[in-house]
Amino acid sequence: MRTIEGSLDGSGLRIAVVVSRFNELITERLLAGAVEAAREHGVPDDRLDVFWVPGAFELPSAARRLALLARYDAIVCTGAVIRGETPHFDFVAGEAARGIMDAGRDFDLPVTFGVITSNTVEQAQARSGGAVGNKGREAMVAAIEMATLLKQIDYLEDPREEPR
Amino acid sequence: MRTIEGSLDGSGLRIAVVVSRFNELITERLLAGAVEAAREHGVPDDRLDVFWVPGAFELPSAARRLALLARYDAIVCTGAVIRGETPHFDFVAGEAARGIMDAGRDFDLPVTFGVITSNTVEQAQARSGGAVGNKGREAMVAAIEMATLLKQIDYLEDPREEPR
Amino acid sequence: MRTIEGSLDGSGLRIAVVVSRFNELITERLLAGAVEAAREHGVPDDRLDVFWVPGAFELPSAARRLALLARYDAIVCTGAVIRGETPHFDFVAGEAARGIMDAGRDFDLPVTFGVITSNTVEQAQARSGGAVGNKGREAMVAAIEMATLLKQIDYLEDPREEPR
Amino acid sequence: MRTIEGSLDGSGLRIAVVVSRFNELITERLLAGAVEAAREHGVPDDRLDVFWVPGAFELPSAARRLALLARYDAIVCTGAVIRGETPHFDFVAGEAARGIMDAGRDFDLPVTFGVITSNTVEQAQARSGGAVGNKGREAMVAAIEMATLLKQIDYLEDPREEPR
Amino acid sequence: MRTIEGSLDGSGLRIAVVVSRFNELITERLLAGAVEAAREHGVPDDRLDVFWVPGAFELPSAARRLALLARYDAIVCTGAVIRGETPHFDFVAGEAARGIMDAGRDFDLPVTFGVITSNTVEQAQARSGGAVGNKGREAMVAAIEMATLLKQIDYLEDPREEPR
Repeated sequence: MRTIEGSLDGSGLRIAVVVSRFNELITERLLAGAVEAAREHGVPDDRLDVFWVPGAFELPSAARRLALLARYDAIVCTGAVIRGETPHFDFVAGEAARGIMDAGRDFDLPVTFGVITSNTVEQAQARSGGAVGNKGREAMVAAIEMATLLKQIDYLEDPREEPR
Repeated sequence: MRTIEGSLDGSGLRIAVVVSRFNELITERLLAGAVEAAREHGVPDDRLDVFWVPGAFELPSAARRLALLARYDAIVCTGAVIRGETPHFDFVAGEAARGIMDAGRDFDLPVTFGVITSNTVEQAQARSGGAVGNKGREAMVAAIEMATLLKQIDYLEDPREEPR
Repeated sequence: MRTIEGSLDGSGLRIAVVVSRFNELITERLLAGAVEAAREHGVPDDRLDVFWVPGAFELPSAARRLALLARYDAIVCTGAVIRGETPHFDFVAGEAARGIMDAGRDFDLPVTFGVITSNTVEQAQARSGGAVGNKGREAMVAAIEMATLLKQIDYLEDPREEPR
Repeated sequence: MRTIEGSLDGSGLRIAVVVSRFNELITERLLAGAVEAAREHGVPDDRLDVFWVPGAFELPSAARRLALLARYDAIVCTGAVIRGETPHFDFVAGEAARGIMDAGRDFDLPVTFGVITSNTVEQAQARSGGAVGNKGREAMVAAIEMATLLKQIDYLEDPREEPR
Repeated sequence: MRTIEGSLDGSGLRIAVVVSRFNELITERLLAGAVEAAREHGVPDDRLDVFWVPGAFELPSAARRLALLARYDAIVCTGAVIRGETPHFDFVAGEAARGIMDAGRDFDLPVTFGVITSNTVEQAQARSGGAVGNKGREAMVAAIEMATLLKQIDYLEDPREEPR
């Protein structure tokens, strides 16, 4: 029985972060967490690009266009959707999640979901570098692990080549 | 680390607005907000087209046919779904959101979600030029930002050309 | 700025109605409303075809096969899903709505959603020719408006031809 | 105005039943209902095949592989998902319903939804040959009606041939 | 009437397990259950590969890349999503379920859903080798049954060959 894992070494990777501006006080902390994690795991600064979009509904659109470039090993989507008075939250958060999953599916690329979906601003603060971690950071670490795992999987197919 | 953003300069863009007639007292205010925002951000009047559809369920169908024309840089969908006595609201609003996301996905074009999904008429009024903003305006601004961002992304691929 | 709308003139259209038999006392009133609206808006009787299916879950399947014929300008789906004791309602109504949206998406054709999704029989009666209108009628009017709108959109692409 | 309906004559049809083993005391009654209905409506025994799968989540997978054979005129999916202590019910029932709808969509074949989705075992018993009918039986009758309807629709396209 | 079933003999199969690290105290028990079941049903150890991913949202991405290899007869996805204070649970669990279903759909391969989706840690413990079974084990058994069933179905198509 073989066990295959990705690594947390981002030194060979090129990564895009897509971040939404809505609830910017929160999302700039998510971005900071993602960038900090990228650096800690060795992603070179000149291989890390950040793209701002207006809101969470727009995350999939930018992620897809970036995936089309075939330039990045992974795409991190980060943003914050906070429930308001109306059910709008459910449709925006639901479609953001679905669209991010589909971007990964359609381009066969790790596209990670660093989107806070919370009932209150306090919950969003706690998940953007507060008491409950930082979803931007988590999504960057997940992206690095997935990008390196998928290279391991490709290596299974052609064992003559070392995984890149 | 590069940071790439769209701009709010719509002067080089051609934009379609699809607006649904159901709850027309609300949706004409959403349309007015979208048009006003387009003008403020420099979209020329002769490059702004408005298309009326019956209800929110029909927004994706018109958006897709417009995307097929390959004439517009972005499509703004605006409408208002207000919860009634039955769960019909959930299916119409859910499918409108999904259909609008899929139109953007399938045509690789910004298709923005300026649809109010509210529990009451008062909430819809507040979000169509009242105390909580104007979802039509927001969707237009998001469309301009996304259209200009996607041009920036295309420019990454071929840095010899200036972004259009 | 141009404003483009469909018309309510169905005289040049060929339309299919798919109606589900489940809750037939309701759905025959929905069908009657749809047919009445078609006639009021000039759809010739020999260009209006009605197809019965067992339940709302089957509406998309028939709509898709009809769309494949490339014979109809629009397809009206009508039916009634009423909540019972179990959550079965949510899955049937949800998939009917999704399937009808996808039929329109995949065949680039107006496929309208004249399906009552209600908590009680009384709510269904009110929406099938009672106090709250007739969802079959509304779906027919929406189909006519969308079919004529899509012809207007095609005409934008090739302004030499008059819209059919 | 033409009205087109399927028939309940299954004598010319070849039908597959996919049944899930989870909650087998219920699902064997659903299967019995489906088989009984097939016989009552003239489906020959040697044209009726039954396929067991572990649970409702697996129904779409088997239905799709069977559809690929291009051997059956319709596929009946039957099973029982009963709510437990956790929200697992929602994901399994939701994906079963979606997967069954998509199997019909992707293979342009009637794939009917004879799946009980209930809050209690008692509700499931009532819908598997008890006081509220038998969902397996209903799904078989729906499959027969849809298979014969789709043949009628094909005949519209080529009126020289009698519907098979 | 023929009745076709898979078997629980995994001796001819090659199976991948994808397991998510989030809630690792739970998921290592799910993995252990899956591996134990594989051995009990004869899957040779050198035909059983285990792949770790960060969280449940990443399960579909790895499953798809593994399916692309055309090396495995089935893929078992296992993980644990436990509801927290926010609605994040719904989006992650919902997309994991949808993505796993779609992986099976798009690659025509059994991809089973061994993911706990629970309201509490206690419920997750009970379903990972406690009082309510082990979802990892169940998903492995389902994968073996589905892989052998699909071979039976292929054999229907070409009865000259014995099912592998």
